[in-house]
Amino acid sequence: MPYTIGLDYGTNSARALVVDCKDGRELGTSVVDYPSGHQGILLNSSDHHLARQSPADYVHALEKATVEAIAAAKQADPAFSPDQVVGIGMDGTGSSPIPVDAQNVPLAFDDKFKDNLNAQCWLWKDHTSIPEAAAITEAAKERKPEYLAKIGGTYSSEWFWAKIWHCLKVDPEVFDAAASWVELSDFIPSVLAGVKAPKDIMRGVCMAGHKGIYAEDWGGLPSKDFLASLDPKLADLRDRLYDKAHDASVAAGKLCDEWAAKLGLPAGIPIAIGEMDVHYGAIGCGVDEGTLVKVIGTSTCDCAVVSAEKSVADIPGICGIVKGAILPGYFGVEAGQSAVGDIFKWYVEGVLGDVSLHGKLTEDAAALKPGQSGLLALDWNNGNRTILVDQLLTGLLLGQTLYTTKAEIYRALIEATAFGARAIVDRIKEYGVPVERIVCSGGIAEKNALLMQIYADVTGCEMRVSRSSQSCALGSAVGAAVVAGVHPDFKSAQAAMTGLKDITYRPIPENQEVYETLYQLYRELHDSFGGVTKSADLGHVMKDLLALKARQSR
Amino acid sequence: MPYTIGLDYGTNSARALVVDCKDGRELGTSVVDYPSGHQGILLNSSDHHLARQSPADYVHALEKATVEAIAAAKQADPAFSPDQVVGIGMDGTGSSPIPVDAQNVPLAFDDKFKDNLNAQCWLWKDHTSIPEAAAITEAAKERKPEYLAKIGGTYSSEWFWAKIWHCLKVDPEVFDAAASWVELSDFIPSVLAGVKAPKDIMRGVCMAGHKGIYAEDWGGLPSKDFLASLDPKLADLRDRLYDKAHDASVAAGKLCDEWAAKLGLPAGIPIAIGEMDVHYGAIGCGVDEGTLVKVIGTSTCDCAVVSAEKSVADIPGICGIVKGAILPGYFGVEAGQSAVGDIFKWYVEGVLGDVSLHGKLTEDAAALKPGQSGLLALDWNNGNRTILVDQLLTGLLLGQTLYTTKAEIYRALIEATAFGARAIVDRIKEYGVPVERIVCSGGIAEKNALLMQIYADVTGCEMRVSRSSQSCALGSAVGAAVVAGVHPDFKSAQAAMTGLKDITYRPIPENQEVYETLYQLYRELHDSFGGVTKSADLGHVMKDLLALKARQSR
Repeated sequence: MPYTIGLDYGTNSARALVVDCKDGRELGTSVVDYPSGHQGILLNSSDHHLARQSPADYVHALEKATVEAIAAAKQADPAFSPDQVVGIGMDGTGSSPIPVDAQNVPLAFDDKFKDNLNAQCWLWKDHTSIPEAAAITEAAKERKPEYLAKIGGTYSSEWFWAKIWHCLKVDPEVFDAAASWVELSDFIPSVLAGVKAPKDIMRGVCMAGHKGIYAEDWGGLPSKDFLASLDPKLADLRDRLYDKAHDASVAAGKLCDEWAAKLGLPAGIPIAIGEMDVHYGAIGCGVDEGTLVKVIGTSTCDCAVVSAEKSVADIPGICGIVKGAILPGYFGVEAGQSAVGDIFKWYVEGVLGDVSLHGKLTEDAAALKPGQSGLLALDWNNGNRTILVDQLLTGLLLGQTLYTTKAEIYRALIEATAFGARAIVDRIKEYGVPVERIVCSGGIAEKNALLMQIYADVTGCEMRVSRSSQSCALGSAVGAAVVAGVHPDFKSAQAAMTGLKDITYRPIPENQEVYETLYQLYRELHDSFGGVTKSADLGHVMKDLLALKARQSR
Repeated sequence: MPYTIGLDYGTNSARALVVDCKDGRELGTSVVDYPSGHQGILLNSSDHHLARQSPADYVHALEKATVEAIAAAKQADPAFSPDQVVGIGMDGTGSSPIPVDAQNVPLAFDDKFKDNLNAQCWLWKDHTSIPEAAAITEAAKERKPEYLAKIGGTYSSEWFWAKIWHCLKVDPEVFDAAASWVELSDFIPSVLAGVKAPKDIMRGVCMAGHKGIYAEDWGGLPSKDFLASLDPKLADLRDRLYDKAHDASVAAGKLCDEWAAKLGLPAGIPIAIGEMDVHYGAIGCGVDEGTLVKVIGTSTCDCAVVSAEKSVADIPGICGIVKGAILPGYFGVEAGQSAVGDIFKWYVEGVLGDVSLHGKLTEDAAALKPGQSGLLALDWNNGNRTILVDQLLTGLLLGQTLYTTKAEIYRALIEATAFGARAIVDRIKEYGVPVERIVCSGGIAEKNALLMQIYADVTGCEMRVSRSSQSCALGSAVGAAVVAGVHPDFKSAQAAMTGLKDITYRPIPENQEVYETLYQLYRELHDSFGGVTKSADLGHVMKDLLALKARQSR
């Protein structure tokens, strides 16, 4: 009766999940909110781009969530014993790099740096490094176009090198004190494995390939010459990072005695290679060729796979095509929307100021027909990750009259995220990645039938929901089951441990037709404000929306 | 000790004001809400363009407001007696035409039509006649360009002929039953004068010239040939309207016995020619060459005058240049914004759902610097009256992040209306109408110092506030004082009876500079979505706003 534990580090909290390797049964779980900052995020009120996180919160949550999940599993099934846990896996947000010292201890643990925001984890959504990202893009365009080809053509301010370079510029003391920088999803496995020097950390190819410009084709990380052209200190740092990154077919290490004791688990069990949350999430949702997985949370991550035996073209604006990044033996294709749930949360809590309104607004919005509000929005309140790869974009709402209601705006914001989702689906399909259905995961997908139907109508794809409401943690547990040898490979592990809920959202033809019109208008705004179109003729947009509103109000 | 009474018919209520002709002292006033519909407006939930009003509400308010104002005047000054009232004046919204029968009784008073929305007053803000307005514009462009030259080049759906033609199309029974159509501001004086046949109504040149395509240059109303080309029945109607319209140098009649008894006033006192509310409002604010008057309410109306001895060029997009329309002996220049107070009201009440928030939002918005929010809005929730003359436009808000606050949005909406105001000032100055200062009237101007300062910073003009908070009614009383012979002309009547509050809002140079940048961005959006620019390059807009936000947040 083998069990594995999956750990999932999200934006505001971490969770642990005890899973039965036979059938994916979830025995016990626990969620621990990060105690620091605003909902776990360290902010700077004078710079909305800044978002950091305390590494101490991660270690705190590691112990607390795991111990509580094991206790919950014992309570749920008295036959369960922690001795039956044969492996542990972990995923986390990314790119979320942490500066560590020569003993693999975060600089933030040092009294000297404990209150320094630059010595904390640079959370994925931190956008302070926009100029550095732009400079990396420019430098690579000129000298190393291959570096950009697999990441959509633009290096993002959300990623590893931009963040570290920005730190070097604004806080050289932190940069100089850092023996190395470790992605959150490599850091937690290294803590569990008791790794005492950064060079011994097993790095996952998922973060390395998607965020660190790592590829075996060019010998690992970017060349020292290239890095030196940005700043000589970055070239020096390369020597203190890593030469080789690994896919999930190998383990990140074995559980060390210290953490085995803390967690009450057998020492020496294998630890899966860490992956980005949504990559293990995709595995937990049953990702396969033809199935796009959308993990919908504060933002979304969209994952697809294509057999490594085929060739995948470089796809403009798609932020990652990395061999081995999701499933060993496949190219992992990753895209995403910079904000989805965060937009609804902003509107309902930040603007309307009443968290309890979500239900009523959803109900009122569901009573509207597509196009009936006359509204159209852009989903860029946190920039556009895919397909424009531009953080210097903002939200837009258009079509308001003196009678526009709060529920109409709510629906327009949902639709905007659906249009953003469609832009991604269209782009990857155009470049040969098959998308036959979309499997979603996350609380929004489970609870908001209106959103799911709108996504079906806008994308034209059948929408399904992962059986597990903890797909990321489940995927980590699947990874652990594979490195523990319970299942011979991911395909059989997924077949045994993952599944879908019964409900299917199918596109409704009359809605599809209206949304086709709205999507074309969305693309006009998208391409105009996104800088794709240099000579837009937008005089018809408000008139077309009013005409559609009149038609749909009848 | 002569007194006059000014009546002001607004969008939601009517007021009466008893004024001392010597010094403009306001002795007594009363406001009566129109009892029907939603805040006095008859709506149709399936057509947000429709806005009608009950003529019975007008007559009800006429008696109640006047009687109450007289009672209030008696209470305020025991020496006051209604016998000392020497004249009565009236202004109203427009174009707000009412279908009447052969006895000058509104069709809506007939049981047959009492519940028919088309038999009511077609309130100024009714936009059901967009196709008819467009067709009139097209026809005039082709055959009678002079008809458009003085009204900004585009006939509006808010105006007389478009509304009546629309009625003919959608409800010929009402059209056929109407012996004539009378503007609200001609109707109330005709009621006071006891006019029993439409042909005996004294029509004001203000409504005739601005809304009815009336000018002595082409022999009064549009030619029968022109009207017949639209519909032969409109040509027939011309015979049942009027040949001559008058400026405020003549009276509309004398108070009839019936209404003298109802109101407790001396029979036979002169009634001033009715004008549009804001035209008498401009007089009440002391309008003169170089002084632009803005009456800021649900919408705004902007009025300026230029001596009739000069020539005034036709001004594209300015909805009216009419000789005698405001002051006898001057060209009256009228422009306006389709929604100002209505936009704030919509946002605070319709979206945020809490009318009590205005104060707190104003306070929080006042703590922000120009540009600090990164937001930019278009003030088109009710279309654009000037300078685009296009009702088929809607609101737009751009620049939202995940941290945008409700107060930032509130400020952005105020700024949007200021940019709309600036577009008008720039346009009329460009065509030779002098604007040295702006005098405002209305509750918003009196109460909202933030808005006034923003308008000063955006327009670069000194902003003043009319001493009277009832400038329109005061202006009507000024008009009554002139026709009663208390003062020899408007200039001396204005000098005696009107004035300004002590406060002056002067442009702050550092704010002006930021708003100059924002206004240029506003104009890019304005011209793109307004159809002026056919090849817009908008990729920089969000980036410029973010850069300004960063600068102003320091």
